[in-house]
Amino acid sequence: MTADAELAAVPPAPILKDLTDENITENTVIINNQSRDRRLKYIMERLVTHLHEFARETRLTTDEWLTGIAFLVQCGKISSDVRHEFVLLSDVLGLSCLIDSMDHPKPKNATIATILGPFHAEAGEFENGDSICSDGKGEQCLIRASVKDTQGRPLEGVSVDIWETDSTGHYDTQYDGATADCRGIVKTDAEGQIWLKAIRPVPYPIPHDGPVGKMLEHLGRHPFRPSHVHFKLVKDGYDPLVTALYLKGDPYETTDAVFGVKSQLLIEIDRVTDPAMAARYGVNLNDWLIEYDFVICTEAEAAELKAESSRKYLAAKGLKLDLIDGLPVADLD
Amino acid sequence: MTADAELAAVPPAPILKDLTDENITENTVIINNQSRDRRLKYIMERLVTHLHEFARETRLTTDEWLTGIAFLVQCGKISSDVRHEFVLLSDVLGLSCLIDSMDHPKPKNATIATILGPFHAEAGEFENGDSICSDGKGEQCLIRASVKDTQGRPLEGVSVDIWETDSTGHYDTQYDGATADCRGIVKTDAEGQIWLKAIRPVPYPIPHDGPVGKMLEHLGRHPFRPSHVHFKLVKDGYDPLVTALYLKGDPYETTDAVFGVKSQLLIEIDRVTDPAMAARYGVNLNDWLIEYDFVICTEAEAAELKAESSRKYLAAKGLKLDLIDGLPVADLD
Repeated sequence: MTADAELAAVPPAPILKDLTDENITENTVIINNQSRDRRLKYIMERLVTHLHEFARETRLTTDEWLTGIAFLVQCGKISSDVRHEFVLLSDVLGLSCLIDSMDHPKPKNATIATILGPFHAEAGEFENGDSICSDGKGEQCLIRASVKDTQGRPLEGVSVDIWETDSTGHYDTQYDGATADCRGIVKTDAEGQIWLKAIRPVPYPIPHDGPVGKMLEHLGRHPFRPSHVHFKLVKDGYDPLVTALYLKGDPYETTDAVFGVKSQLLIEIDRVTDPAMAARYGVNLNDWLIEYDFVICTEAEAAELKAESSRKYLAAKGLKLDLIDGLPVADLD
Repeated sequence: MTADAELAAVPPAPILKDLTDENITENTVIINNQSRDRRLKYIMERLVTHLHEFARETRLTTDEWLTGIAFLVQCGKISSDVRHEFVLLSDVLGLSCLIDSMDHPKPKNATIATILGPFHAEAGEFENGDSICSDGKGEQCLIRASVKDTQGRPLEGVSVDIWETDSTGHYDTQYDGATADCRGIVKTDAEGQIWLKAIRPVPYPIPHDGPVGKMLEHLGRHPFRPSHVHFKLVKDGYDPLVTALYLKGDPYETTDAVFGVKSQLLIEIDRVTDPAMAARYGVNLNDWLIEYDFVICTEAEAAELKAESSRKYLAAKGLKLDLIDGLPVADLD
């Protein structure tokens, strides 16, 4: 059907009346189906259905609903360019972990993704060998990493964006009048290598002085994340890899408040014990050392995996839906 | 089990690892189950389950997730003491209608409830015969109503809170430096009667200059509500009745943007044609006239109906849950 023919076929706004708790869902879906965007229609149909089922199954009261409304307002009020309370909420509810896994599946031999978190920010460009942390920010740690494709070939010119907290567990953006620190972007050399001076990561609580922190308290949950360094690897033609490396043995290794830790991303932090290495990288003997070999996959590899997992999931659920760009959409009326 | 014994039985924070899109839901539920509040646990379990299922079924992308996050932030940012964007969102998604129906079911012979809407505010107290609208706010309309119990007995001393827009379709709170207007509270007399001067209600759009308005636009939905007057009836021992009267024949009668209209609440607006009536109520011949007989039920009647509908719903879904204060709660671990 052409866009014009589709437009001509749109019925007048559907008629609603005598709404009850039993028919409100279908009526809401019908009125939302006036949209011309099949993807939006499908998303709204699923959103309204789940929202209503949630309310029905819990027999949600007006007071509880008001508590929820007030919570959402507070999350919005505390949000700013550097405070992302709704991202935090998504993180602590496991939604971010789920979206990342679905949207960026990786082949078995590629490095797994994990959550971006709310502290990614614009970073300066650095050269291999530079320090991304200003003096006094923590115990110096050499980060050495290689980046390869899934065939084992080193990749040159990959943009490697690294960010971490200082030794007090705060990101630069959490300070008033912040300037970029403990974050930086470096490009892999011809051998697919990067090396930078950073600091040993520490565990820290997610910002818990706001509504999400209060929610965790009510749930009996601690707000801590285990020590980690974030990485975002980007190269044209390759699926962006948002990931992090976690220190094995951290007290919060198995109870990360935002569900980011994965076995493949757990590393043993080491010391620089070889004087030749210390000299080569301009660091001190006994400085901390993090080494990792990243493997990134192509956009095509990721797209194929993603489409396959969508097909599998929808088939398993018995959902027969048209796909546009690999995403399920509402039926044509 | 006593509270102390329950506390002693709490296991240490559960261990999570290797989170995938397949196991993130059960892991999130397990970690939330550290809460000691059985009602909160049940609500969170249902919330996380539906949130994750929504993301899975839609194969929600990172970009779509970011759009959702930005939308929620905007709803929070525009919210204020007089702008309730999340209430509006709940209204246009049919959630408010559902919550009201579930939380305040009414016996068949009682007046049905409808949504409160985001414009209820503190109002002054008036005497029968007063005008709740200042001059020039619209075409004068006499409102006469009786309030009875479900046995047909007139109820004295019921607080009747009435609010409506002016003839331009705006509530007082939508004006800068607002003072209360077109809203007021009056008590029923010994015969269970109230009468006030107000204005003829008009259709109006819900505030649609914010994120919720943008959403309606994307959905091809208009933002209009049919002409109506809000009522909130309160008396000790009786279930509060939040309702509204809608004008039959309004252009938006069958497509209310917030799903408030119900057949029982549709009325024919009339004219004062009897000179004796005009004289008695101090209004002009041909002024508009709204008359209605409200019936409110007791708290006990409402509580019984509510518990019964919960039981029926949970049984139909095959959910075997403990109830506390009539509300389903999580199992004891």
